[in-house]
Amino acid sequence: MDRKTKSGLSRRSMLAGTAAGVLAPVVVAGAGATPAAAAGQARNITLYADTVAGTTRVGYGLEPGKPTIPGPLLECYEGDTLVIELVNRTDQRLSIHPHGVNYETTSDGSPLNNSFNEPYETKTYTWKTRTASQAANGFWMPGSAGYWHYHDHALGGDHGTAGLMKGLYGGLIVRKRGDLLPSKQFTVVFTEMWINHQMAPDTPIFEANLGERVEFICIGHGNLMHTFHLHAHRWADTRTGMLTSATDNASIVDNKTLDPGCSFGFQVIAGSGVGPGAWMYHCHVQQHSDDGMSGLFLVREADGGMPPGAQDAIDHFKGHHHPTAKPEGSTDAAASAHMHH
Amino acid sequence: MDRKTKSGLSRRSMLAGTAAGVLAPVVVAGAGATPAAAAGQARNITLYADTVAGTTRVGYGLEPGKPTIPGPLLECYEGDTLVIELVNRTDQRLSIHPHGVNYETTSDGSPLNNSFNEPYETKTYTWKTRTASQAANGFWMPGSAGYWHYHDHALGGDHGTAGLMKGLYGGLIVRKRGDLLPSKQFTVVFTEMWINHQMAPDTPIFEANLGERVEFICIGHGNLMHTFHLHAHRWADTRTGMLTSATDNASIVDNKTLDPGCSFGFQVIAGSGVGPGAWMYHCHVQQHSDDGMSGLFLVREADGGMPPGAQDAIDHFKGHHHPTAKPEGSTDAAASAHMHH
Amino acid sequence: MDRKTKSGLSRRSMLAGTAAGVLAPVVVAGAGATPAAAAGQARNITLYADTVAGTTRVGYGLEPGKPTIPGPLLECYEGDTLVIELVNRTDQRLSIHPHGVNYETTSDGSPLNNSFNEPYETKTYTWKTRTASQAANGFWMPGSAGYWHYHDHALGGDHGTAGLMKGLYGGLIVRKRGDLLPSKQFTVVFTEMWINHQMAPDTPIFEANLGERVEFICIGHGNLMHTFHLHAHRWADTRTGMLTSATDNASIVDNKTLDPGCSFGFQVIAGSGVGPGAWMYHCHVQQHSDDGMSGLFLVREADGGMPPGAQDAIDHFKGHHHPTAKPEGSTDAAASAHMHH
Repeated sequence: MDRKTKSGLSRRSMLAGTAAGVLAPVVVAGAGATPAAAAGQARNITLYADTVAGTTRVGYGLEPGKPTIPGPLLECYEGDTLVIELVNRTDQRLSIHPHGVNYETTSDGSPLNNSFNEPYETKTYTWKTRTASQAANGFWMPGSAGYWHYHDHALGGDHGTAGLMKGLYGGLIVRKRGDLLPSKQFTVVFTEMWINHQMAPDTPIFEANLGERVEFICIGHGNLMHTFHLHAHRWADTRTGMLTSATDNASIVDNKTLDPGCSFGFQVIAGSGVGPGAWMYHCHVQQHSDDGMSGLFLVREADGGMPPGAQDAIDHFKGHHHPTAKPEGSTDAAASAHMHH
Repeated sequence: MDRKTKSGLSRRSMLAGTAAGVLAPVVVAGAGATPAAAAGQARNITLYADTVAGTTRVGYGLEPGKPTIPGPLLECYEGDTLVIELVNRTDQRLSIHPHGVNYETTSDGSPLNNSFNEPYETKTYTWKTRTASQAANGFWMPGSAGYWHYHDHALGGDHGTAGLMKGLYGGLIVRKRGDLLPSKQFTVVFTEMWINHQMAPDTPIFEANLGERVEFICIGHGNLMHTFHLHAHRWADTRTGMLTSATDNASIVDNKTLDPGCSFGFQVIAGSGVGPGAWMYHCHVQQHSDDGMSGLFLVREADGGMPPGAQDAIDHFKGHHHPTAKPEGSTDAAASAHMHH
Repeated sequence: MDRKTKSGLSRRSMLAGTAAGVLAPVVVAGAGATPAAAAGQARNITLYADTVAGTTRVGYGLEPGKPTIPGPLLECYEGDTLVIELVNRTDQRLSIHPHGVNYETTSDGSPLNNSFNEPYETKTYTWKTRTASQAANGFWMPGSAGYWHYHDHALGGDHGTAGLMKGLYGGLIVRKRGDLLPSKQFTVVFTEMWINHQMAPDTPIFEANLGERVEFICIGHGNLMHTFHLHAHRWADTRTGMLTSATDNASIVDNKTLDPGCSFGFQVIAGSGVGPGAWMYHCHVQQHSDDGMSGLFLVREADGGMPPGAQDAIDHFKGHHHPTAKPEGSTDAAASAHMHH
C-alpha cells in the first residue's frame, strides 16, 4: 500500500486497523513531508463508495472494492481546492458532505440541494479552502484550517443518518502553512457505542514509537453524547492542540466532549514524559467504556520494540468480552441494540 | 414594525419568522448603527409576558398582547445598565433571569431570592454590565461582553422549567466598544426537539443577501444535548466568533455543542466563498435533525433575488413531514412526546 | 483541622460540607500562600481509601477512617512531583488515576496495566508535572497546568465505574508560577443526578465573604450530560478562567458543559458587582436541577455577616423536597434510580 494513488497523491502513513475493511489510508493533497509547491491548485481525488464485503456496511475508499471505515484521511493546505470524484458502487443514493471547507450548493451533498449520487452514479464535488481575511477593528474572519470531517448526507434520508450508521464518514484536515506535520495519524470516530464501527476488543490499537509526533483526529457522529479521553497525554484546546507561547492561557485537556458532528484534533509526542506502554483511549461516559468504547494507544520503544508489560496489557484488553451491542452490519443479529437512546 | 419603541430604542433588524407570534424584534440599547454617546447610562425596556393567542405558550414581547418566541433580542455595550420592567399579563408566577450580566439578588429572577412577578404583577429587574478589570500578574477579570440569553426562572417551579417549555426565553448581547455590528441577526434556540419552539418544516427560514454581515445567537435549553451545525459557513470558537490576527490559534468550528443553558454567537458573511443558496442549519444529533430540528439559511443574490435552485430547495424543505413530537402548546394532542429523554 | 498533615503539607482552606463524611480538605503541595521554594522536588501524600461509615460509599481521605466525598483537593506547581501512597482499607480492588499529569504505566491506576491496590494493599503512584516546551514554528507543547481531577479506575471493573458511583474521586490543580491564589476553594462534582454525591437540599452550601477571591473546580463523572451554571458570576473559557488583557477575545461563560471525565476551574471575586446574597449554582439541564442538582453559593457580607434575605433563601432551599433518586450508598432503598439513562 506504499504507493501513489492514481491522482498522484502520496500516502504518508497508514492508520492502524484491526480488521480487513477498516484500514484507512492517508491522502495528502498539497501537504506531506514534501509539500507541493503549487498550493492553491485543484487536487483531484477519486473516492469509491462500496459495501464492505459480507456485511451491510458501506465505506468510502481510494480503490474500487476496498472501502475503509473510517474513509481515507484527506488533507490539504489553506488555499488548495479538492475536487472529489465520488463513484457510487452501491444500489443506494448517497453523497459526501464536508465540514469546514467552502462548497457551492451543487457540492453540498444534501438532498435539499439535489446534491447526491444516484445508485451507481459518479459525481464530482468541489471543496475550496482559504486563509483568514482581515475584517475591521482588529478582527479577522477565520480561514479553513482545522481538523474537520466528511460524511454521507443522503443515504436513506435527508440527513444521511443511515449512511453514517453504515460507515460513510472520514477525517479531513486543512492546515496552515507552517503547521507541524506528524509522522503518524489516527482517525477516531465515536458513533453510537462504537469506535470506528468496532467495539472492544476489536477497536483499533494505534501504534507509534516513543518520541514520534502523533496526530489524533477525533470525530463524533450519531445520537449520543461522548467524551474522548487519552491516558498519559494531553493537548491544548486550540486549533492545533498546541500553545503559541509559554504563557498562552488556553485550556489544556485530556478529556473532551465529542458530540455528533463535532471534531477536533491534536498532536502529542508519543510517550513523552511517561514512557512507552499500552495506554488506553476511551469514551469517559462510564457505560460507554464499559460496553466497549475503549481502545489502545501502543507506544513502543524508540526502536519499535515491545515495552515491558505491554503485551500483557494487550492480552488483557483482547480478553475483554463485551457481549452487548454490536455495530450495524455485523453478522451478529443483536446488531443495533444501542443505536438509539 | 420599523418604528421606535416607547423606551426610545430603535429596532435595527427583524428576525425571520414563519408564523404569527414567533417574530422576534431586536432591541438595541446603546448599540446599533449609531451607537449612543451616553454609554454607561441606564436604558429602560418594558417587556410583556403574554400567552400566545390560541395556545398554552407564553412569550416575552415588546408590546402588550404581542409575545414572540424567542423574545426580543436585547443588546447593549459594556458599561450600560438595562432596567427591565416586566409586565406579567398571565395568571401564573414568572420572572426574567439573565445570563452574563450583573444583578443583585432582588433581580435574580429566582423564587429562591423571592424575585419574580406574581400573576398580573409588574416588576423591575436591573442588569448592569462592566468592562474587564485588571487583577494581577497579567490576569484580567472578564467583563460582561458575550452572547448571552435570558429566560424565566419561576413558572411552575424553582428553575423555570415550565416557563422554558412554554417559550419564555430570548437572546442578550453585550458588546465591547469596537465590536463589529451586523446587518442581520438571527436568534436560534434549541429546546427539546424544537427550534424556536417549531419543528421542520415550520422552523425559521433566516434570510440575508449575499455579502451581508449576519449574526447568529445560539441558545440551548431544556433537557437534551444538541449540536448546532451551519452548512457552508464557519466561525472561530471565541467571544466574537472571529480571530484577532491571521495567526490566531483559536479553533474554527461549524458544529458546536449547544447544551441547556449554554449560548454562543458569531458573525458570518452570508454566502462568502460559497455563493447564494438555501443552506441548512440543523442539530447534528441525527435523530433530532431527522425528527425536525432543521431549518434554512436562505442567502439571496446580492440584489435580493432568489438564487438558482433555492426555491426548489425551499419547496423540498416545506414538503417534509415530521409526524412525531409537536412542541408544548401546539394544538396537536401529541404535544410533549420528546420533552424528556 | 487547622494543622499540618503527616506529610508536612499545610491545609490552606476547607471546602464547605453539609454532612460528616463529605468534608474535603485542601492539600497544598508546593503551592499555597507561602509557596515552597523547592519546586521540582517530590511531595509525599498519603491517601486512605475507606468506606464511609454506615453506607456503601467509599472515599479518599487524608486520615485513616476519615474518607471525604469528593476526596482531598490536591495542588502543585508545574515541575513538582506528587508521590501518592494509597492505603486501601477496603475489601475491594481499587486505584487512583489522575488526569492531566504524567505517570508511567505502573502508576496508570488501570487494571489494563496491572496498576491498582488489591484489598487492604498499600501502593505508591507517582505523578510528574512539567512546564510547556517549545516545539517549532512558534508552537509549544502544553505543560501540565490545569484544573484536573483523579478517580478510581479499578473498582468492580476495568474503568472504575463502580468506584466512581461509590465516591472515589477528587480535584487536582496544577498551577503555573505566577498564577493567582484564591482564599477559598470549592470542588463541585456532577455525577449522575448528584452534586458531590448529594441531592438538594443536602448539596453543599459554599460560603465566602464579599470580595474574597474564590476558586471553583468543576468535575463531571458518570453517564449523563450536565452543564454547570453559577448565578451572578462568570468566567473566561481559558485555563485560568481569566483573561490575559482587556482585549483578550476568549469566550466568557457562566454556564458550561460538564460531561463525564471533563473538568474546568475558575476564580471569581465573591459578589463583585452584584453584592452579597445566596446565589444558586446548579446543573442547567432542567430535569436535573428540578430533581436536586442545585446548591448555594452563600456570599456573606465583607465582615462575615448574613446579608439581608439570605437566611430566607437558605430556608427556602432547605425546604425543598426532592423525593426521587437518592445516590448510591444512601440508606434509602431507592438508591440508584437515575444512575443510567
